[in-house]
Amino acid sequence: MILRLEHLGIAVKDLAASNALFEQILGAAPYKSEEVASEHVITSFFHAGEAKVELLEATAPESAIAKYIEKRGEGLHHVAFEVDDIHAEMQRLTDAGFQLLNAEPKRGADNKLVCFVHPKSANGVLLELCQTIRE
Amino acid sequence: MILRLEHLGIAVKDLAASNALFEQILGAAPYKSEEVASEHVITSFFHAGEAKVELLEATAPESAIAKYIEKRGEGLHHVAFEVDDIHAEMQRLTDAGFQLLNAEPKRGADNKLVCFVHPKSANGVLLELCQTIRE
Repeated sequence: MILRLEHLGIAVKDLAASNALFEQILGAAPYKSEEVASEHVITSFFHAGEAKVELLEATAPESAIAKYIEKRGEGLHHVAFEVDDIHAEMQRLTDAGFQLLNAEPKRGADNKLVCFVHPKSANGVLLELCQTIRE
Repeated sequence: MILRLEHLGIAVKDLAASNALFEQILGAAPYKSEEVASEHVITSFFHAGEAKVELLEATAPESAIAKYIEKRGEGLHHVAFEVDDIHAEMQRLTDAGFQLLNAEPKRGADNKLVCFVHPKSANGVLLELCQTIRE
């Protein structure tokens, strides 16, 4: 099942500039920054209560973030919901007719297994399911 | 100061259809629906942990939601942060050079005073500040 809104992802062109901007807005610096080489992004995370704000800058032109910015400009990119069992949730949504963007969970930022749901399945919203990797 | 990510607003064309869709995704029905006549929207709210998901359908062509959908299609529309003192936060952000979309707080959905920050000030993200009205 879906447990909570885990984070909101924002596509940015210049992570350093956006880190400074969101530090002004949110009143605190990002608590971490992390590169996800497989996704060609560098990310930073801010606390905003229970949920987090993730900024994402592309590190290569083939990054989904680069393509998103080229098409739509900077802005709200995805919303991630934490789930208790990502395989079960992927099966549940597939059975309900949702189109997943990856057939198997992949490793995302912040020690998570993640799966994306196609925006066409969800009112134009790119959904991420994420489950914390238990060590 | 900003306390937490309060909700994420999603622009939709057909609230009834989107309520059913997000009920499938989130596993529970919206806990309330509310019309905000001044904004020409009808809204519904889902719990997603501490944060909420708000769906917004326009009730008139002049609604910001109608204009948004015409320009960008359905999808992620705004992110709202709860603040302890909306007047103080509006002053703080104005002093820092952010452009506010309303000079005075206005009454929003869910018993809140709200103020929007221009997306041009915030990486293309439409920010809402909101403060619960104390009765």
